[in-house]
Amino acid sequence: MERKILRTECPDSKGLIAGITGICFEHQLNIIRNTEYVDPVSGQFYMRTELEGQFNDAALLQQLDQMLPAGSERSLLPVSRRKRMVILVTRESHCLGDILMKVFDGSLQLDIAAVVGNYPELADLAERFGIPFHHVCHLDKSRQAHEQALLEVIESYQPDYLVLAKFMRILTPDFVERYPERIINIHHSFLPAFIGAKPYQQAFERGVKIIGATAHFVNNALDEGPIIEQMVSRVDHNYSAQDMAKAGRDVEKAALTKALKLIQEDRVFVHGNKTVLL
Amino acid sequence: MERKILRTECPDSKGLIAGITGICFEHQLNIIRNTEYVDPVSGQFYMRTELEGQFNDAALLQQLDQMLPAGSERSLLPVSRRKRMVILVTRESHCLGDILMKVFDGSLQLDIAAVVGNYPELADLAERFGIPFHHVCHLDKSRQAHEQALLEVIESYQPDYLVLAKFMRILTPDFVERYPERIINIHHSFLPAFIGAKPYQQAFERGVKIIGATAHFVNNALDEGPIIEQMVSRVDHNYSAQDMAKAGRDVEKAALTKALKLIQEDRVFVHGNKTVLL
Amino acid sequence: MERKILRTECPDSKGLIAGITGICFEHQLNIIRNTEYVDPVSGQFYMRTELEGQFNDAALLQQLDQMLPAGSERSLLPVSRRKRMVILVTRESHCLGDILMKVFDGSLQLDIAAVVGNYPELADLAERFGIPFHHVCHLDKSRQAHEQALLEVIESYQPDYLVLAKFMRILTPDFVERYPERIINIHHSFLPAFIGAKPYQQAFERGVKIIGATAHFVNNALDEGPIIEQMVSRVDHNYSAQDMAKAGRDVEKAALTKALKLIQEDRVFVHGNKTVLL
Amino acid sequence: MERKILRTECPDSKGLIAGITGICFEHQLNIIRNTEYVDPVSGQFYMRTELEGQFNDAALLQQLDQMLPAGSERSLLPVSRRKRMVILVTRESHCLGDILMKVFDGSLQLDIAAVVGNYPELADLAERFGIPFHHVCHLDKSRQAHEQALLEVIESYQPDYLVLAKFMRILTPDFVERYPERIINIHHSFLPAFIGAKPYQQAFERGVKIIGATAHFVNNALDEGPIIEQMVSRVDHNYSAQDMAKAGRDVEKAALTKALKLIQEDRVFVHGNKTVLL
Repeated sequence: MERKILRTECPDSKGLIAGITGICFEHQLNIIRNTEYVDPVSGQFYMRTELEGQFNDAALLQQLDQMLPAGSERSLLPVSRRKRMVILVTRESHCLGDILMKVFDGSLQLDIAAVVGNYPELADLAERFGIPFHHVCHLDKSRQAHEQALLEVIESYQPDYLVLAKFMRILTPDFVERYPERIINIHHSFLPAFIGAKPYQQAFERGVKIIGATAHFVNNALDEGPIIEQMVSRVDHNYSAQDMAKAGRDVEKAALTKALKLIQEDRVFVHGNKTVLL
Repeated sequence: MERKILRTECPDSKGLIAGITGICFEHQLNIIRNTEYVDPVSGQFYMRTELEGQFNDAALLQQLDQMLPAGSERSLLPVSRRKRMVILVTRESHCLGDILMKVFDGSLQLDIAAVVGNYPELADLAERFGIPFHHVCHLDKSRQAHEQALLEVIESYQPDYLVLAKFMRILTPDFVERYPERIINIHHSFLPAFIGAKPYQQAFERGVKIIGATAHFVNNALDEGPIIEQMVSRVDHNYSAQDMAKAGRDVEKAALTKALKLIQEDRVFVHGNKTVLL
Repeated sequence: MERKILRTECPDSKGLIAGITGICFEHQLNIIRNTEYVDPVSGQFYMRTELEGQFNDAALLQQLDQMLPAGSERSLLPVSRRKRMVILVTRESHCLGDILMKVFDGSLQLDIAAVVGNYPELADLAERFGIPFHHVCHLDKSRQAHEQALLEVIESYQPDYLVLAKFMRILTPDFVERYPERIINIHHSFLPAFIGAKPYQQAFERGVKIIGATAHFVNNALDEGPIIEQMVSRVDHNYSAQDMAKAGRDVEKAALTKALKLIQEDRVFVHGNKTVLL
Repeated sequence: MERKILRTECPDSKGLIAGITGICFEHQLNIIRNTEYVDPVSGQFYMRTELEGQFNDAALLQQLDQMLPAGSERSLLPVSRRKRMVILVTRESHCLGDILMKVFDGSLQLDIAAVVGNYPELADLAERFGIPFHHVCHLDKSRQAHEQALLEVIESYQPDYLVLAKFMRILTPDFVERYPERIINIHHSFLPAFIGAKPYQQAFERGVKIIGATAHFVNNALDEGPIIEQMVSRVDHNYSAQDMAKAGRDVEKAALTKALKLIQEDRVFVHGNKTVLL
């Protein structure tokens, strides 16, 4: 008995649920949980089906391909396979630390292949958890040369996803295009409020009563990719910009690790510039 | 083109989703949204299917009955049919007022058939919204006689549900049994904390930092029915018991009207002493 | 025995708390609660002192004026005096309705002098609560002529504050300058996200996972005045822009009435473009 | 220039704030922040004054002692002095891990003197952060003998506070009495809901829609000491008892570290069975 996730994405038409679940039934697979969404504007259909049983992947997928309309995407992913992540950091430790702690205690079931920093400060923390750390310094390098150096390290690990855990550098379009829907960033504001640099300073100057953090996929427009998760925390006039930044750490790490959990469970579908979480 | 909700509840077995959605497909019905849950302990299956198209109710239900296992329950409910509520109150106005305002502005699509109070204070408020008010005084009456008087008024309206919107009297088992899973109460605490009388006084004495409210179905054990919705609000040492009660009004009305919205949309399934919200 | 709020605002210097509370002590006044804040950047001092006893206002204020540095502002406000509000609305009822309900049940202790709408739809609701309603139509009028007509109605009530309870028109600088720190608006987004028109449509298009509402003073820059209160609510991919707008009603009304409660209790100090809530 | 916290606790009387802040002014100390509370029932006065300047502790305290009424307690604590904690654990790592990470990144400014576990599992984690770990096994020992062994280890570190970071054993009254208002526990429920063992199992069985965690001082009644902080998290019917326990980890660690931050900043006053947070 194995457990797998079937993900389906295609233009909507009548009978899709019946068709897909019917094929699963023919294969004598048990549906543990089924969640679907049809976007009423675009008419795009999304479904996540958690299946249990004995799988004949090739036959199952072939039957699905015959039934599904043109332009469909589907995948069948074993629950037991851990996704492989490379984490990029700068100097702040709270997001990296929370990921490492959650992998340590089983709250996240991911493989952290390596940590790459443009500063060396977090080498010690990564190594305490037995994770290789690479210092790829950006000083005295062009942006292209630095990204080339990053890519060499990253590619040696063949990751499924890159996690920007407070990586404070903007990536070029060339870099981003290599990992479509595979780079997850934590932005330290409640996007789209306070796009860009120093969001806590901006929040302080605006006098907001709530701060937030946003975990999102990175695309080529700064701070504009599909949002996966957002969390917030109350502040008041007693908070300096630095106090807000400190208070923000807890929501940053919580939003990022929640997003990673959703990725781990194959729940995140990208629909244009949005996510559908099933 | 009509829109209806198909609710199905039965012992789980392989092929249920395929079977049900297959019959919907045969009837050329479009599935707008489908949500299901299988309880892993009891193996009970719950599904809510939002359908659009031209319905032949009798044929559809007959086919479903042939396919579904013994012990199944299913219903097909037009979205356009407004559920009919009788609201029971005592003297506090905030829950009643919020229901009336939300029906007024279309946030809730329910028919408020009547308001019944054991005190007369809220007659004026109900009548401002054009809702008949009945004062059924409990003074100088036995509990049985009072409930009999309530029943006479209530039954004249043939309600789908009774809503206890801060009705501060305990109902007898005889009364409750007449309306199984049809009486919704708002309890002014985060159940199961502070069961019984004066929960804000209890919360104050315990020095809690968060207060809450619980909307639940009423069964025969005091404050013990299936929970539909809970909401909370932060308090601190500055709050007296009265301040907590005032602060609690907002979460009480929000939790109750959220529960009514779930009922309105046929999303609430009862599973033992719990609810499944689909 | 009376209860009054002493509000003090001045440049910080050593000994201010001792000086102010010393004078209160000379007058044999009991301090029920004292809250203060010094802005570390500007060095501005703010204090709210809740006093109980027998007051000689003139003598107390004279002594304070002698002690306080140049550029100080202070006021002594009886708790029992209800602030007088004129509410401006357009067509949406939820904020007006919640204010009226909360005044009705004593949660807000304010005098609602009148409701003024640029459409007539809410006349009925205001009148159900015995509040005069004025329809001041903006059609076929220049902005100046419309504001002149509004002012005539508003001024006849001599309000302490104007409350924009979903008043969907932008006020001119001339109008706003007449009521410095006396106009409270509810903006239907988590400012500064989604400034301007149709914030829920913007939020929908951006795919946010949390929506919000912001109660703020109105100044001459659109959606830019000092923020008094913000509240948020979770949404997901199932919400259309209209669903978000409906879900937003609850946080809009809650944020606005919370702000009015803070105003009622003389807790709001304006410091540049921010508020200090004591 | 130094910064210290003056904490005062005494029966209320007129002139206390003026008296205390007047003495601070005589000493040419600058008040950075002053917060006070008078309990209206007991008439007890609490004040926390954050002072900056050059301190003559002995003279300042002597003058205060002369001015304050009988039964007063006051203390003057340098902000720079780190409180010394011994952490007791069993096998779960998330609370210990979050404390260690927050001390590591400066979010908490505490000295973690040692970690003591009744199981050895967390030795490795503590040692990764350079903290001594002691395994004090409870097996084959009477409760008294085990506590005696714990005490020997704990006392060798002379801690200011004990932190029970998921220490799953009940302490005897003898033990608790040695550390009045100095033992902080995290209870994995929203107290007083689900007192005692297996609160997530209880929460699951009751079908709650929100779970919580409570950080509190330990006194001799199980789960009954003064509450310092509570936090909550939404759950739904999809959560098993184990899922709730996993989801609860984030609020447990957040509530506990928030309580430790309040302790660090000398903000927690105990008033009967409650806390006043200034």
